[in-house]
Amino acid sequence: MTGGRILALCGGVGGAKLAHGLAVTVPADKLSIMVNTGDDFEHLGLHISPDVDTVLYTLSGRANKTLGWGRGDETWSFHETLGELGLETWFRLGDRDLALHVERTRQLRSGVSLSDVTAALATRLGVGPRILPMSDQRLSTVVHTASGPLAFQEYFVREGCAPVVEALTYWGAEAAAPSPKALDLLNDDGLEAVVICPSNPFLSIAPMLAMPSFRDALAKCRAPVVAVSPLVGGDAVKGPLAKIMHELGLPRTQRSLVEYYGDLVDCWVVDNRDTVEARGIPLPVLVAKTVMHDEASRAHLAAEVLEFVLSLPRGGGES
Amino acid sequence: MTGGRILALCGGVGGAKLAHGLAVTVPADKLSIMVNTGDDFEHLGLHISPDVDTVLYTLSGRANKTLGWGRGDETWSFHETLGELGLETWFRLGDRDLALHVERTRQLRSGVSLSDVTAALATRLGVGPRILPMSDQRLSTVVHTASGPLAFQEYFVREGCAPVVEALTYWGAEAAAPSPKALDLLNDDGLEAVVICPSNPFLSIAPMLAMPSFRDALAKCRAPVVAVSPLVGGDAVKGPLAKIMHELGLPRTQRSLVEYYGDLVDCWVVDNRDTVEARGIPLPVLVAKTVMHDEASRAHLAAEVLEFVLSLPRGGGES
Repeated sequence: MTGGRILALCGGVGGAKLAHGLAVTVPADKLSIMVNTGDDFEHLGLHISPDVDTVLYTLSGRANKTLGWGRGDETWSFHETLGELGLETWFRLGDRDLALHVERTRQLRSGVSLSDVTAALATRLGVGPRILPMSDQRLSTVVHTASGPLAFQEYFVREGCAPVVEALTYWGAEAAAPSPKALDLLNDDGLEAVVICPSNPFLSIAPMLAMPSFRDALAKCRAPVVAVSPLVGGDAVKGPLAKIMHELGLPRTQRSLVEYYGDLVDCWVVDNRDTVEARGIPLPVLVAKTVMHDEASRAHLAAEVLEFVLSLPRGGGES
Repeated sequence: MTGGRILALCGGVGGAKLAHGLAVTVPADKLSIMVNTGDDFEHLGLHISPDVDTVLYTLSGRANKTLGWGRGDETWSFHETLGELGLETWFRLGDRDLALHVERTRQLRSGVSLSDVTAALATRLGVGPRILPMSDQRLSTVVHTASGPLAFQEYFVREGCAPVVEALTYWGAEAAAPSPKALDLLNDDGLEAVVICPSNPFLSIAPMLAMPSFRDALAKCRAPVVAVSPLVGGDAVKGPLAKIMHELGLPRTQRSLVEYYGDLVDCWVVDNRDTVEARGIPLPVLVAKTVMHDEASRAHLAAEVLEFVLSLPRGGGES
């Protein structure tokens, strides 16, 4: 570590694990984590930010390790009562988790921005690094399927990722302003690296890149950009990445993802199961253990990724 | 029972017990219960209607018998998490209870009236009689104390009824429209009786009477009005009634309450502990067991009260 600033981009579970690794590796005041809000939606009148919450819970040690989502030590009385009343229950909200949604909704309704609400919640949860929602405006991932468009959570939770994906669009992306703090960082000479966490490129990172001014700032950024591949041995550790790539007609290869990110990334990290495939990638590549089973492996991967990206000559990764 | 309509007026716990007795005595389509909303407030961005909820829980068999408020089979994870986050915890919201607040708030925000929200929730909870919030507009009981005015729940819950009450006012009462269904009933020849439940007159019934058009309609109503006294042996079964009467300079007697209601009531019901005092009341009086310890005693009292009020000659109780 040279003491400069790091910007991480991430979505939910997989990305949050590396974000956690970075949080225990990089001093809190040097790390900013921009989080996907394309999955945000209003449910039961509450504003739900699934990826932001996953990051907050993961970095504060509150994530539910059994379920793989939500927070630990959870109870489900609220959810059961919704069922008893015949109300909507397809999206499960735990009793403890609800505290965040109620407080966020209250603050948003009183005019506080999602960025400021998130910063306040992060402080209350004892999370040190800056957690930046990708935008304070509505920007919603829409999953187009044979039976029509679905909001992301409808596709992901209600339909269990079963419908065949024909296309993905990012509603509101043209109008949404990216996180001002993230934009400032991309223009800051003190930025040392951008780390794209092993999140789903199409669902978690694409909504960020769909904002023209963010994509532009990332492309022009002088710091090197490293992406940790979410594809391990042709499949995702978790989630519908491989299924979606297949449905979108993309080979389930590292190369597909490298080409998807194009000029935006300067170097690439693959799992050691993909050592052979790594040879064909036209970028500097680090082969590492990218599947993080515990906190130690998160920190270990974060340190390796930072060492790798910071060892590249400035601008050396640009094609 | 002659098959006519009954309108009950009530507040929280004590009143809800008699309302429950009425509900098991009177056919559901003949009983309407108008409930105080002067205690309603917004908490954590949620619209809380404490008395309406107490009536809904009591009539649906869901009331918490141990606590005496809220609903049974309750858990407190949400509340604990608010504490963990350093958020407001003086007003305890149970995890199951929360389902009602979240759904009510959602519907109110989408433009549904409190009357319609309440009707829908009553149906979902299997409550047969019509539960009528006293108004769809904001009408808030304000407790004036030596240290300034308090919203009702601040006085009742946060301060535990400790401050000395100097006066009570009902903010918004002049402008609030009373429940249209309750007004219609008061003007309906099919109305057989109005039952004022043993709720606190100053906190639970006064907010209704503070609406000029409701007070007027009740005064002109041709059906007899019976009040069941909440004062038993000079004290209240529950709540700050006796303390407030003392602080407002009122003797803690049946007569004080009879005079407070004045021409609005035609007959009076006291507990058998007040047999002697009953003799001095200038109205037809029923002496009965008014303290309801179980469901059977609720139904028994309701039947006695109805038999009493329906046995009076029409208009016979008017002074």
